[in-house]
Amino acid sequence: MAQARTPTLRDVARLVGVHTSTVSRVLNPAARYKVSPAVAERVTDAVRVLGYRTNPLAYGLRTNRSMTVGVVVPDLTNPIFPPIIRGIEDTLVDAGYTAILANSDNDIAREHSIIETMRARHIDGLILATASRHAPVVEACLEDGVPLVLIHRTTDRRDVSTVTVDDDIGMALLIRHLVSLGHRRIAHIAGPMKYSTAKNRYEGFQRALRAHDIEPEPELIVGCESYSDPEGRRAANILLDCGRAPTAIVAANDIIAIGCYDALAERGIDCPGEISVTGYNDIRFADKLRPALTTVRIPQFHAGANAAAILLERLRDDAAPARSELMAPTLVVRKSTAAPAR
Amino acid sequence: MAQARTPTLRDVARLVGVHTSTVSRVLNPAARYKVSPAVAERVTDAVRVLGYRTNPLAYGLRTNRSMTVGVVVPDLTNPIFPPIIRGIEDTLVDAGYTAILANSDNDIAREHSIIETMRARHIDGLILATASRHAPVVEACLEDGVPLVLIHRTTDRRDVSTVTVDDDIGMALLIRHLVSLGHRRIAHIAGPMKYSTAKNRYEGFQRALRAHDIEPEPELIVGCESYSDPEGRRAANILLDCGRAPTAIVAANDIIAIGCYDALAERGIDCPGEISVTGYNDIRFADKLRPALTTVRIPQFHAGANAAAILLERLRDDAAPARSELMAPTLVVRKSTAAPAR
Repeated sequence: MAQARTPTLRDVARLVGVHTSTVSRVLNPAARYKVSPAVAERVTDAVRVLGYRTNPLAYGLRTNRSMTVGVVVPDLTNPIFPPIIRGIEDTLVDAGYTAILANSDNDIAREHSIIETMRARHIDGLILATASRHAPVVEACLEDGVPLVLIHRTTDRRDVSTVTVDDDIGMALLIRHLVSLGHRRIAHIAGPMKYSTAKNRYEGFQRALRAHDIEPEPELIVGCESYSDPEGRRAANILLDCGRAPTAIVAANDIIAIGCYDALAERGIDCPGEISVTGYNDIRFADKLRPALTTVRIPQFHAGANAAAILLERLRDDAAPARSELMAPTLVVRKSTAAPAR
Repeated sequence: MAQARTPTLRDVARLVGVHTSTVSRVLNPAARYKVSPAVAERVTDAVRVLGYRTNPLAYGLRTNRSMTVGVVVPDLTNPIFPPIIRGIEDTLVDAGYTAILANSDNDIAREHSIIETMRARHIDGLILATASRHAPVVEACLEDGVPLVLIHRTTDRRDVSTVTVDDDIGMALLIRHLVSLGHRRIAHIAGPMKYSTAKNRYEGFQRALRAHDIEPEPELIVGCESYSDPEGRRAANILLDCGRAPTAIVAANDIIAIGCYDALAERGIDCPGEISVTGYNDIRFADKLRPALTTVRIPQFHAGANAAAILLERLRDDAAPARSELMAPTLVVRKSTAAPAR
């Protein structure tokens, strides 16, 4: 029995009675607008009837586009990243692009190798959630003209497109909340200073305290080597052992706050009765912790969607300038904060 | 100034003094073993020195391989999936493959469209964590000979490669633990029966009770329409309102157990003092809930890695038969289970 021949672009064009270039335009999300909706609909119908499948590999070779975007996060199992990735992916898919995802584990060599592989696959652009403040990999992409958007974390360079959260606002909201409850002795557990998120929150914390005429005390600021609960626990123990313990701890993120919970529970210290704790990010299930965590909600899904939109704009227009988008976070008051004990 | 010419495969071969086909073999993870390690090392060095980048698009057209694998999950933000995806991705990357990830939101039309797009991109195979017990999309892939592995959830068909967890073992471990604490009146909140996970746990629950000479009581089994905390809360309220409430609730997964916690907290019922609750999966931070959740740990990362390994085997050998791998879960006893109240 003869096998059915795979339908070609020419077959589709013949069935509709248009030129093959018209069919191509309809099948290219970036060029579809050039064809009238009525013709586009007839082409799509014919594509369905014939069971025609575009060949993106051939398309990529012809147009020098792979219609893929590389997305690199530190670690997918960190609950802050899945909603960001969904925002990126949903937006890219609508534009006909596919996301290729990889995890760097915050390992510079691994990240370098991932990005080399992605570039060898001719990705059309990159979205990185992995940037350190000094990131050679970002320098290399900029130098080579790879369309690039940084999300969540940024480098110290200003000529890159970024989507980040305004940590000055986030810290101001947290400190106003704590001060209004009566706290004055407020500690900060900072993240690793090589990341912009840690630096911005640390600086935002100090600015926010000073706005309430409270001078930050060095003994009430402890740093973490990673955004992890064991590091949060270690830092909380240092604070609890210092001469006069704080009445509130502002953790640089929710996972560090969870580590604080562990340290307090081990010492039988009641939260929020004796010490208030706040997080940052509002990861999934932050409301299910006991006590439910007071934190700052960052618009993760929208941040991802916006990063993808900025990249798409750059892919449509080589001359599009770098854009920095700062998103405003909101305060979520739950059960981990209360007035300080007398 | 003349621009530097992009180095070609031929340049690499000339520098090493071998045939271009040797360079190709070294660059193809599936064929590298055909070349001696010494030559392979010289080729890799030359590739690095010249800054040569393979062109996977051209390679794909030549070999009819795209070196990509489609991975479809219901929703990346469900905490069970990130470790599975990492297991898949880490294994694929080591073999030179790239994973293309998509979320179906358990929507059959969306899943169909995702898989059509992936097939149009000529993915070499598929790993699906989305299967319903009756899944037309799985039928279509099998019919068309698309290499396919189902993970976590399976269909009722037996001729597909699958990696799943042995829920009979998981339920037997949970029931033995509860019975040894003294529980006899044990309820089950089941997941949506269209998924194999829900059906297998429901059947495993009943078998495990009978193994302890306890006859399952219909009024103590309530189903959920989705694996979500609001559904878990709704189901727990039905159980608490039934004539004689249970002393222990076995939830079909951790998220349903979190919904149980909500229902108990709203009524001021102490867990585990008055009612014990168990989960299933051991998602991240299950140990940080209050009370820390007693649950069944499934080897998520390894399940993902094994699914990828089975797919790679099939990609190397068209004739590789379908394989079903059942992984054994383990019991994790924490603070949400205790002896029943007198």
